Amino acid sequence: MKKTPRGNAFYAQSGGVSAVINASAAGVIETALRSKHIGKVYAGRDGIVGALTEDLIDVSRESAATIRALKHTPAGAFGSARFKLKSIEQNRAEYQRLIDVFRAHDIRYFFYNGGNDSMDTALKVSQLGASLGYPIVCVGVPKTVDNDLPHTDCCPGFGSVAKYVAVSTREAALDVASMARTSTKVFVFEVMGRHAGWIAAAGGLAGRGLDEPPHVILFPEVPFDGRRFLDRVKQCVTDFGYCVIVVSEGAAYEDGKFLADAGTRDAFGHTQLGGVGPVVANMVREAHGYKYHWAVADYLQRSARHIASKVDVEQAYAVGKAAVELAVKGVNAVMPTIVRKSSKPYRWVIGHTPLAEVANKERKLPPDYLRADGFGISEACRRYLEPLVAGEAYPPYRNGLPDYARIRGVPVPRKLKDEFKL
Amino acid sequence: MKKTPRGNAFYAQSGGVSAVINASAAGVIETALRSKHIGKVYAGRDGIVGALTEDLIDVSRESAATIRALKHTPAGAFGSARFKLKSIEQNRAEYQRLIDVFRAHDIRYFFYNGGNDSMDTALKVSQLGASLGYPIVCVGVPKTVDNDLPHTDCCPGFGSVAKYVAVSTREAALDVASMARTSTKVFVFEVMGRHAGWIAAAGGLAGRGLDEPPHVILFPEVPFDGRRFLDRVKQCVTDFGYCVIVVSEGAAYEDGKFLADAGTRDAFGHTQLGGVGPVVANMVREAHGYKYHWAVADYLQRSARHIASKVDVEQAYAVGKAAVELAVKGVNAVMPTIVRKSSKPYRWVIGHTPLAEVANKERKLPPDYLRADGFGISEACRRYLEPLVAGEAYPPYRNGLPDYARIRGVPVPRKLKDEFKL
Repeated sequence: MKKTPRGNAFYAQSGGVSAVINASAAGVIETALRSKHIGKVYAGRDGIVGALTEDLIDVSRESAATIRALKHTPAGAFGSARFKLKSIEQNRAEYQRLIDVFRAHDIRYFFYNGGNDSMDTALKVSQLGASLGYPIVCVGVPKTVDNDLPHTDCCPGFGSVAKYVAVSTREAALDVASMARTSTKVFVFEVMGRHAGWIAAAGGLAGRGLDEPPHVILFPEVPFDGRRFLDRVKQCVTDFGYCVIVVSEGAAYEDGKFLADAGTRDAFGHTQLGGVGPVVANMVREAHGYKYHWAVADYLQRSARHIASKVDVEQAYAVGKAAVELAVKGVNAVMPTIVRKSSKPYRWVIGHTPLAEVANKERKLPPDYLRADGFGISEACRRYLEPLVAGEAYPPYRNGLPDYARIRGVPVPRKLKDEFKL
Repeated sequence: MKKTPRGNAFYAQSGGVSAVINASAAGVIETALRSKHIGKVYAGRDGIVGALTEDLIDVSRESAATIRALKHTPAGAFGSARFKLKSIEQNRAEYQRLIDVFRAHDIRYFFYNGGNDSMDTALKVSQLGASLGYPIVCVGVPKTVDNDLPHTDCCPGFGSVAKYVAVSTREAALDVASMARTSTKVFVFEVMGRHAGWIAAAGGLAGRGLDEPPHVILFPEVPFDGRRFLDRVKQCVTDFGYCVIVVSEGAAYEDGKFLADAGTRDAFGHTQLGGVGPVVANMVREAHGYKYHWAVADYLQRSARHIASKVDVEQAYAVGKAAVELAVKGVNAVMPTIVRKSSKPYRWVIGHTPLAEVANKERKLPPDYLRADGFGISEACRRYLEPLVAGEAYPPYRNGLPDYARIRGVPVPRKLKDEFKL
């Protein structure tokens, strides 16, 4: 570890946003503004796109109250982007451009708040900076509702979506249970998680035992067996009077084909880009004729700051803060991690791991987190999940609605003459 | 008004449940248990079905803590039912059976917690009781998330679903706005309200002015014009970078055909019983090719006790309490109402109206609650809605999840020999 020179800092949000990514932003910004190693703090407008196009926001021009309010504001206050940098071989110009912009604005610290792809980008910037004669300290700030980053016990953003899904499952299940005798018998709740079943697993927190809802969870990790599924649904309706199903958008057949690609066509014969929720509900109707309802939470689940997990908010802030503390110590090309010390009582500390260890890697639900029948979560999974949804961290309200922060977004005067074409 | 004799009370929940119908139950039960006119309090298991089948729950056997906890518990704790009694001409036996059960259990007070249909049932029971030689005091307790009962300023259940929809719209819109530059440009949020646009209107509270989301609301009251709608969506994406749409499940064409019946077919050629959300999203894709997402809240919205409106919880309790107070004064065949005294500051009192005035009637969104272009709400509508979503009334939490009440449900011993076939 070596001391790095004084310079400005760049922060950007990347990929799908969450209920707490702005809490990480607050952690980065408040810590950076206090650091004697860091001058100005700039944010990329719309993530890395802002860096490439030299569209920078002068965070120093935001009030302390606004920065503080980011802790209770969902989504990406500075704008995020689904923009994956190409590989260095394919488009070295992009990396050169980043370094040009950073050099023009004396940016010596690069904080990139995102998931697997983003950690790969941060890693490349850290490597290229040196070879292009502009060393820059790059630290990743973990963020993904999918909870699929390796080498961290959990990912900021996940605890809140987990809480939303568990609470919503419990509430909707009470609704279905109370009316099943004469009305809806099957309820299907579609949640996110295209490649890993962490979010679907969180639905399992709503109940305990085979008789409590959700009665069936469909994970991406468990190949879908239509016969077994339909038998189970029927058994639940027979035994309990109703059946609540949580299905991951990534639920798939043995051959990897998503259930959502069920060949449904619209009136014009085009493939219907539908959710897996209605597909599963229709399967039940075809087989058993039960009255059903389905819900698709989509963006509601990952933006639901109103029901965020307190632990998640604290961890999101902590990884942002730690990123800056590591950077100003000269620790380069790392990502702060959450290290679990114990589950009951829940204790955690911040660690860190090399970006090379997390870039482009994906952590799936381990087999021992599944119940033996594959339709639920194990006790080990419950022990893992419970602390992550603990505590409430309500935003302030005004006129009955959450009072979320809005940044001023004062642009930094541009210094480069040429435009960069994305 | 005459004093009624001492007797037992019957309470039942009817129709689609809500986040606060149990708060009304608590209001009825706590008040009834304190009344010197009322002996035992019985609840129908699964609503009126419990009365017909003599399946009664002895509410006196629940702890005071459980009854109190109903105030923060969503859905129908005693079970609700979608079971409409036939007309007296069609099936007098049903009404005769109700009277038989009430007579057997000395039930002299009938409290029926529901919407338009239920008020009709309560009215018929009140009329028939006398003609069958068993006078019984019938008081309706208003409940409907649809907010479509006449002669009351609002309906308990609506304020909470309105708050859920407004909060969710605001949160999801922040998500879309933060990523629109490189990702999703159009977000469609489907909400309930098959015949009236009250719930969709609540989405309008999320923003103000034409530039703030939701940019488009599709109401059942405004015939859908595809060309105008698609033009507006394009204009929003051009002007603001994205477009957030709230659509009522009851949105329909000029000829009354629901948008949801869009002729979509599944792989087997069957009509797809889909939500209107994906239908609208597909229209946008076909016309403009924008990347889109859609969410369907379905039961999540009406069971979301975690984000209930405090005003709504208070009003739900108050109408339950008032129902008993009216009944023991001998006021028959009425429904307590919410009477607005002023909007700013919000002041309301409890009134009442004859059941005959509300039975089977529906209140739609008045024309002056729509913005001139038909795609949003007017200032008058905002003034009406704002007080109804005011205040938070969080349930207690345990292990990160709401701690909702569960009743013991001790059955009342049966007295009638014959079974009643539903």
